[in-house]
Amino acid sequence: MQNRRDFLKTSALAAAGLALTGCKGFTPRRTGGPLTMKFFPYELQLRHTFTVASYSRTVTPDVQVEITWEGVTGYGEASMPPYLGQSVESVCSFLSKVDLSQFQDPFCLEDILTYIDSLSPGDSAAKAAVDIALHDLVGKLMGQPWFRIWGLNPALAPSTTFTIGIDTEEVVREKTLEAVGKFNILKVKVGLDTDEAMIKAIRSVTDVPLAVDANQGWKDRQKALDEIFWLKEQGVVMVEQPLPISALSDTAWLTERSPLPIFADESIQRLRDVQSLSGIFSGINIKLMKCTGMREGWRMAQLARALGMKVMVGCMTETSCGISAAAQFSPYVDFADLDGNLLISNDRFDGVKVIDGRLSLPDRPGIGVELL
Amino acid sequence: MQNRRDFLKTSALAAAGLALTGCKGFTPRRTGGPLTMKFFPYELQLRHTFTVASYSRTVTPDVQVEITWEGVTGYGEASMPPYLGQSVESVCSFLSKVDLSQFQDPFCLEDILTYIDSLSPGDSAAKAAVDIALHDLVGKLMGQPWFRIWGLNPALAPSTTFTIGIDTEEVVREKTLEAVGKFNILKVKVGLDTDEAMIKAIRSVTDVPLAVDANQGWKDRQKALDEIFWLKEQGVVMVEQPLPISALSDTAWLTERSPLPIFADESIQRLRDVQSLSGIFSGINIKLMKCTGMREGWRMAQLARALGMKVMVGCMTETSCGISAAAQFSPYVDFADLDGNLLISNDRFDGVKVIDGRLSLPDRPGIGVELL
Repeated sequence: MQNRRDFLKTSALAAAGLALTGCKGFTPRRTGGPLTMKFFPYELQLRHTFTVASYSRTVTPDVQVEITWEGVTGYGEASMPPYLGQSVESVCSFLSKVDLSQFQDPFCLEDILTYIDSLSPGDSAAKAAVDIALHDLVGKLMGQPWFRIWGLNPALAPSTTFTIGIDTEEVVREKTLEAVGKFNILKVKVGLDTDEAMIKAIRSVTDVPLAVDANQGWKDRQKALDEIFWLKEQGVVMVEQPLPISALSDTAWLTERSPLPIFADESIQRLRDVQSLSGIFSGINIKLMKCTGMREGWRMAQLARALGMKVMVGCMTETSCGISAAAQFSPYVDFADLDGNLLISNDRFDGVKVIDGRLSLPDRPGIGVELL
Repeated sequence: MQNRRDFLKTSALAAAGLALTGCKGFTPRRTGGPLTMKFFPYELQLRHTFTVASYSRTVTPDVQVEITWEGVTGYGEASMPPYLGQSVESVCSFLSKVDLSQFQDPFCLEDILTYIDSLSPGDSAAKAAVDIALHDLVGKLMGQPWFRIWGLNPALAPSTTFTIGIDTEEVVREKTLEAVGKFNILKVKVGLDTDEAMIKAIRSVTDVPLAVDANQGWKDRQKALDEIFWLKEQGVVMVEQPLPISALSDTAWLTERSPLPIFADESIQRLRDVQSLSGIFSGINIKLMKCTGMREGWRMAQLARALGMKVMVGCMTETSCGISAAAQFSPYVDFADLDGNLLISNDRFDGVKVIDGRLSLPDRPGIGVELL
């Protein structure tokens, strides 16, 4: 049997006598003509050299997107840290294939984003850039920020974690002292020989709650469990991706026994991955650059909750554009790791702020950003 | 560990120095004061006596709800057919417990509806009435119909089924002739001795596609499968609730072998039921009066799709208020069974229409209704 939705799309098009025009037979209230899109590379300058186990860097490649309709412009961005496997070239190549002129009503996000997603199997950051710009545009057309459109209370926006990089004990103490007072929860990369020294250096100056991200760094489940018990004694409140992606049954074993919630990061990309992680992880980390954007990210959050899972929202190094977009559903999450805009020195936008350690969502429409 | 969201609610309240006031620390853009709610019984008069296997009736009990904020009023309703186990008394008793005056921002649907749901374990229709009225209100405040807020294309709204009641062959032929031309798909109650006679009577006058609803009426899985194969030959395109609620493994057996999609109806109530039906049914029938309203209904639709399931939207006998509310996410479904407002003679509202058999969503804000 032909799929009803496909069939109806076809017949609605036929009825309208149009070749995939706009919102397929629906006359929008405004008739400002087609959507137009611009994009350009924008290299993010990091305030400090960024070092993880595998590499160091001082910049993050990024592409900025603007979608305009009826004189109203929505902003979006794609951020491409190396491990994402996308680049300025791949993003621009993808965006140059996007033909938004066929759509005349930006409100039809379901149709437009289904089309965008159909253009290639990957390109999640490029897709997210379009999704974010469209959400910004539609929110502006509605005159509302997305947290309100989604029915969320901005007073429930959580504190964001702030990452203390791996360094000498003295530098760690110094950076921790700087962060304390500004942040209510700090994040530490673990899964290295430095774990104990890092935690002890931080604990020598503050007792704020800690989140840890092992980045698949632990290889043995029993040792991971032992370390988690120790971390809990040190005031750690959650653990990200303790074991390798492939170690699903060990992760399920660990989650069942862990005194702390275990979040999937490298193990989760998109909506289609969520269900299979139920019973294996306590929760998922949603990142717009991996999940293709706000529409899918919000769906993932709701699906995870429906499956009884916890939710966190994370980010790449991004301008306040991507961070403010991700922050829109932060009132719905258990943990937020949205410090990516604080790490760059050339932000293009004013947007979500960290006030007393908590995310403060601007009461501006769309994703709430303004060009600086 | 204390749940972060509960903790934040508490601390946000504490910070604001308020006792569960409004949107918990957030100052809404408008400050029109608290939400107010009115409700009153409104008995729905059926155009024709309604008969199913277990009873006949000429009226459906119903309660109408109005929620007002800043001079803007949203409309909702609770419809209580006998099998739902709710009544005018139970709905009014529930609604009298609802204190909306504590909320000062209707946009905070997540908070308000979480509070409503916490008031009792059941009362789904009463909860739906509040949910629908709030959605109507918030949509009006945004100046947008909910299909647009949800990003759906109204040109993809499906045809609605129209039920041909069980009757003598002559009356069935007559009623079918009346319905043909107005509807593109008809629905037949099966699971009775009358199945073959009903289908043949309809087929003697039209070849439009048919949907069948067995209401748990088949008791033997092999006989059900045989009948479904026969029904497919007769141009039936989907089957609702073939076997009893308790017969889950037989239903899974049947769904695996059925040439037609099998939809859960009596087996599904709310969001929490969806996941467990994956692999047992092909899809779910979402009814606002059972699932507590539009927010949970739309979540169920998205969850079902994420689980690879089909979606249909159904109804009770309702005014155009409840039907127009349910129709808002109809562009996202495979089948719609939204003929409940066509069965009553005292509709209070103008709302969604059936044009050339298809649902036509009004381009009015909220749920798109106006008092007649």
